[in-house]
Amino acid sequence: MSDGREPLSEETRRQLLKVSVATLSSQLLKRGFRQLVLAGVKPLRPDLRLIGQAFTLRYLPSREDVERGDYDNTTNKQRIAVESVGPGDVLVIDARGNTVAGTLGNILATRMKVRGVAGIVTDGAFRDSAGIRAIDLPTYAAGAHPNVSSTVHYPVDMNLPIACGGVAIFPGDVIVGDAEAVIVVPRKVAGEVARDAFEQEEREQFILHKIEAGSSIIGVYPPDEQTLAEFRAWKSHRLEAGQSYATGEGQQ
Amino acid sequence: MSDGREPLSEETRRQLLKVSVATLSSQLLKRGFRQLVLAGVKPLRPDLRLIGQAFTLRYLPSREDVERGDYDNTTNKQRIAVESVGPGDVLVIDARGNTVAGTLGNILATRMKVRGVAGIVTDGAFRDSAGIRAIDLPTYAAGAHPNVSSTVHYPVDMNLPIACGGVAIFPGDVIVGDAEAVIVVPRKVAGEVARDAFEQEEREQFILHKIEAGSSIIGVYPPDEQTLAEFRAWKSHRLEAGQSYATGEGQQ
Amino acid sequence: MSDGREPLSEETRRQLLKVSVATLSSQLLKRGFRQLVLAGVKPLRPDLRLIGQAFTLRYLPSREDVERGDYDNTTNKQRIAVESVGPGDVLVIDARGNTVAGTLGNILATRMKVRGVAGIVTDGAFRDSAGIRAIDLPTYAAGAHPNVSSTVHYPVDMNLPIACGGVAIFPGDVIVGDAEAVIVVPRKVAGEVARDAFEQEEREQFILHKIEAGSSIIGVYPPDEQTLAEFRAWKSHRLEAGQSYATGEGQQ
Amino acid sequence: MSDGREPLSEETRRQLLKVSVATLSSQLLKRGFRQLVLAGVKPLRPDLRLIGQAFTLRYLPSREDVERGDYDNTTNKQRIAVESVGPGDVLVIDARGNTVAGTLGNILATRMKVRGVAGIVTDGAFRDSAGIRAIDLPTYAAGAHPNVSSTVHYPVDMNLPIACGGVAIFPGDVIVGDAEAVIVVPRKVAGEVARDAFEQEEREQFILHKIEAGSSIIGVYPPDEQTLAEFRAWKSHRLEAGQSYATGEGQQ
Amino acid sequence: MSDGREPLSEETRRQLLKVSVATLSSQLLKRGFRQLVLAGVKPLRPDLRLIGQAFTLRYLPSREDVERGDYDNTTNKQRIAVESVGPGDVLVIDARGNTVAGTLGNILATRMKVRGVAGIVTDGAFRDSAGIRAIDLPTYAAGAHPNVSSTVHYPVDMNLPIACGGVAIFPGDVIVGDAEAVIVVPRKVAGEVARDAFEQEEREQFILHKIEAGSSIIGVYPPDEQTLAEFRAWKSHRLEAGQSYATGEGQQ
Amino acid sequence: MSDGREPLSEETRRQLLKVSVATLSSQLLKRGFRQLVLAGVKPLRPDLRLIGQAFTLRYLPSREDVERGDYDNTTNKQRIAVESVGPGDVLVIDARGNTVAGTLGNILATRMKVRGVAGIVTDGAFRDSAGIRAIDLPTYAAGAHPNVSSTVHYPVDMNLPIACGGVAIFPGDVIVGDAEAVIVVPRKVAGEVARDAFEQEEREQFILHKIEAGSSIIGVYPPDEQTLAEFRAWKSHRLEAGQSYATGEGQQ
Repeated sequence: MSDGREPLSEETRRQLLKVSVATLSSQLLKRGFRQLVLAGVKPLRPDLRLIGQAFTLRYLPSREDVERGDYDNTTNKQRIAVESVGPGDVLVIDARGNTVAGTLGNILATRMKVRGVAGIVTDGAFRDSAGIRAIDLPTYAAGAHPNVSSTVHYPVDMNLPIACGGVAIFPGDVIVGDAEAVIVVPRKVAGEVARDAFEQEEREQFILHKIEAGSSIIGVYPPDEQTLAEFRAWKSHRLEAGQSYATGEGQQ
Repeated sequence: MSDGREPLSEETRRQLLKVSVATLSSQLLKRGFRQLVLAGVKPLRPDLRLIGQAFTLRYLPSREDVERGDYDNTTNKQRIAVESVGPGDVLVIDARGNTVAGTLGNILATRMKVRGVAGIVTDGAFRDSAGIRAIDLPTYAAGAHPNVSSTVHYPVDMNLPIACGGVAIFPGDVIVGDAEAVIVVPRKVAGEVARDAFEQEEREQFILHKIEAGSSIIGVYPPDEQTLAEFRAWKSHRLEAGQSYATGEGQQ
Repeated sequence: MSDGREPLSEETRRQLLKVSVATLSSQLLKRGFRQLVLAGVKPLRPDLRLIGQAFTLRYLPSREDVERGDYDNTTNKQRIAVESVGPGDVLVIDARGNTVAGTLGNILATRMKVRGVAGIVTDGAFRDSAGIRAIDLPTYAAGAHPNVSSTVHYPVDMNLPIACGGVAIFPGDVIVGDAEAVIVVPRKVAGEVARDAFEQEEREQFILHKIEAGSSIIGVYPPDEQTLAEFRAWKSHRLEAGQSYATGEGQQ
Repeated sequence: MSDGREPLSEETRRQLLKVSVATLSSQLLKRGFRQLVLAGVKPLRPDLRLIGQAFTLRYLPSREDVERGDYDNTTNKQRIAVESVGPGDVLVIDARGNTVAGTLGNILATRMKVRGVAGIVTDGAFRDSAGIRAIDLPTYAAGAHPNVSSTVHYPVDMNLPIACGGVAIFPGDVIVGDAEAVIVVPRKVAGEVARDAFEQEEREQFILHKIEAGSSIIGVYPPDEQTLAEFRAWKSHRLEAGQSYATGEGQQ
Repeated sequence: MSDGREPLSEETRRQLLKVSVATLSSQLLKRGFRQLVLAGVKPLRPDLRLIGQAFTLRYLPSREDVERGDYDNTTNKQRIAVESVGPGDVLVIDARGNTVAGTLGNILATRMKVRGVAGIVTDGAFRDSAGIRAIDLPTYAAGAHPNVSSTVHYPVDMNLPIACGGVAIFPGDVIVGDAEAVIVVPRKVAGEVARDAFEQEEREQFILHKIEAGSSIIGVYPPDEQTLAEFRAWKSHRLEAGQSYATGEGQQ
Repeated sequence: MSDGREPLSEETRRQLLKVSVATLSSQLLKRGFRQLVLAGVKPLRPDLRLIGQAFTLRYLPSREDVERGDYDNTTNKQRIAVESVGPGDVLVIDARGNTVAGTLGNILATRMKVRGVAGIVTDGAFRDSAGIRAIDLPTYAAGAHPNVSSTVHYPVDMNLPIACGGVAIFPGDVIVGDAEAVIVVPRKVAGEVARDAFEQEEREQFILHKIEAGSSIIGVYPPDEQTLAEFRAWKSHRLEAGQSYATGEGQQ
């Protein structure tokens, strides 16, 4: 989506890929954001991480008098969206939490994969969900349903603010997902949230090592001054040794 | 709302006020519309009938980084809507079915009453619901909640297509409500639906009289040729006698 | 329904009309029946009491390939049921808890009133609910919806065992309703349950008078020997005085 | 409950009785309390106002191996609570939102009425709900069910912190209810919240009068300096005239 | 089940095993069937395909006065059904969506496997679900629960029409399942639906290859005349080469 | 937890580890316990078995005026519980079924693992659920959510009776879990229930073998005298052969 917004810096993107959604949620809470996790939205591919910018698509309940143009790629907003998304975009579909039909299927998902999208997210369902799971693309939905979207959905507009999983999403918001959940990181705070989340995870990785080694949480979680000093020493040592921090499952 | 649309004819408006939503639902089904009743939306004033044209207002989940301008009547879309609606409009608020805060309270409802609105409908809740009930205005909601709207809602735009109670509503749709429910009558078919619904209720009033008088439903409901002939005779007789048909509760 | 079953005795019927559903629930629990109250089923006419025997009607989800015969009173099971129920019957409709269409409307309800039914109960919705409320007949449903039944229901058979409000109901079961709820009283225990419930309410009426007069619950609720002796004296006195027990709202 | 807490001042109590729960919710939000309204809890007597201090009673799911002592007033926590509550107390029962049995019935409610309680609140159901409605006491519940409490509930302890309607309630919290809802006002802020809510309603009464008289909301709601000056003049005038502010339905 | 119905042709059966439920749903929609997918019913063995004819079993809520004959294989309808199903049958159990007890466990499932059933489907739960998953049999349920069925279910009759997952199912209906869902294919249209679904999947396989190779959806999905010509050429070529069409995960 | 209770015998513990929750449910039902399975609580590690004694922790909804002491390990009840649990304990958290925040994350879970707990169970969610899954510890929850617990939970007390998944749990209750569910075994009956469940599974293993070999259920399930004699012979033979019974998936 070419909207004049600054692209995310490489540093921010790299950090967001390494931290868990749980840690991002903590950092957003520190900045006053109480709840930005999409309710009920689960990964089809928990092995993949999602990071990209929101391209929004809004569905309404279908109605018999609305010309759906199901098969007309020049008027159907779903089809236009599919051919409009670009590299780094995350297509986010507001399906009003309705999971009794798909929002799209594997052919359209494949087309978006070829176009370079970063992922697809909906609070509705996917159709052909086995086919979508087979694509190497982070996809998230609230369900799976074989029915075609037009039985309950009508794609009405693109790139307006929407609700998805009970969270307001504005075009260009940063969307991050892991095996646990999808979270929205407002564009303005993405840089600082990524940086602080990365630091938090380094610290928690050290704390986890201490806990695994038999330490009590007293003085360690949260860390007191002595633990923080130990952490800084450990980190310096690692940097000298040329080791970079890498998130493993244990850190989530 | 001055949108260039033809106003409803007086005849259509008069007929719609006399027929039940149940009968409208039947007539719409005959034209292929399977489900246009707003789910979960109940009248605060079951003694009043609602008829008007949709003026839509869309709410998203509130988010801490969005300037809500709660008290700025020049930027807050809810406030702008209140001062934009006009005679014959029905304000229809898409609140995503969220009833854990009000969508508006009695002061704004009073202002709209003064401005001449035909009614207010939401799939969210009202705040100050006792106060709203006290206004002589047909109002419909899915609940009542004391919390102010900004705790969960952000008014994002006006007069775009919305979903309300699981039904797509387009600005200008005809909105009709009675003690049982609210239904959407698409503008294009409003005239013929009103006319046929009115005729259906006349016929059913006659059938009901026969049933009350001890008739079996056989040959009567649905009516066979003989019953229809009786109906036409009864109707002619009434017309000659100068009696006009009037819907009472018994006809609903 | 002429099924060879013994009719309820006048005594049992008279007692069931005077006791609350809450008291019947207690007496049934003493006989091992843990839960016979229909979930989610509420009275349209809380001012009327319901007592009668179950005439069951089962609905399935409608399906496009099933000849519904909507208007054929000779094949449609709903219509046949309406013309088959008789005095003292309670039509109980298994609608699978689906309230997004009516199960029947005011014309059919009126016909059944004329036929002498004791009431109508469904875990679905009524259509024309204002019209049904206007009939002097105890009716109970889980909702109100303007849509005709055929949009979601297909009446499949009559007088088979059904589920309604989460309770199994067999044709001929005694159905009792008050302002609070509807309960099933199995035919075999109806006589003893009615008798013991009536006695329980007499006792509780006495206890309530004592409590209202300032007594503590200690020794009174549940009653100890002294309170029971007082109760017996009070009861004898009333009988001598020619007063009969009558349930008021206070006893429910 | 004699717990050494300062009783509410008469002034505070008087003010709380005059303001709506909606206004209290606004004042609490200004102090950082986002959500203190009990979800799903509705009045049996919307004509009465509730104000008192919380006396808590906690129910667990019943279990067959727990000696319930249903009828032993010396060991059953429900019964002990009934004989422990005193004037000004509001019995608040944590029933985990389970409404498939009553939490108590009309005899116990009557006893508490005699003992001087200010009201009863539960997120479960009442049994004998018609009988409870007949008592001149503000009572609130999430439902009505004829089954006795022991079929699903076991009263485990009193005057511990509980959850009710999704809100934490501590013994001694101020509980206020009107026709719309029940809200918790934490003891520490009760005085200032009552005072500011009372002032807010005076102001809103004036604003409502202006709106009813045809004023736009611009400059009036929220009030600008000129409107506030008008308000102060109006208020002075009323005070001089010896008129006291009184909440009517319009202010709620 | 020997009911005099024509068995499914081998051709139809072969085609149904190769196409996805999503494609069947499309073909049924073209014939006017809007919704035949069982809601909430998920596979225990997503690696297996289900195809067979419905043998129905209906459960009611259990009731204390009903002789359940839990252990009497000669009277218990569940047990009789287990010993009545035969090769190609799919046992479909109407459990009213109640998942707080099993509908049957691994021993009965094993017996049916030995008898040659094609699969088991319920909108209730399975008990011993790990054991059932271990059987090489396509099984579908709405949940798993350790409790024995008699705690909430009473098996009342066999081979009557039932509801399962919100869909009406008639004995003999064709039941098809894949990793995504279970769908009902009415017997009368099974042949043509299978044939057209098979052709649709061939065409979509070709389209998917084009999309994967970088084609836009314009002119391809849906296919225009040129794409259809390419498809026919591709298909002829494959047939000449002796390749048969086979559904892989990518086609679902 | 050192509470003076007799520890479970080794024999009982060994038997409980071998039998399924489904079989325990049957044995508990025979002793009058109708429903002790935790609703909605699913294993993160279905490959591990859970057996231990309940250490309870109760959460209330969080409230802004409660000093949460989130990071004070000396006052926060969650943190105190983590450093109080000991070998063989199962931490059971009453989260009121609220899954829109975690109840704890991977660092605290790791600390408890090091302290020797037998497992963790909650009817709320876990945070860092991927990290918790990575620990070799049987853990069960009703969901996964990235938000920190303090956004919705306040840990209020430890080792009081609680509700979890709709079941009352008393400190010291025996908690058993498998791939299907978690069940509470009251301490007093744990020994006999374990013994009889073990015997039941031996018998059912034999029955399953017969069914797999082609036997009908008639006379076998339930077993008649002849089958029981065969079972005893089979069992003797195995014991002579030195084979011990071991639960495989097939027995669950």
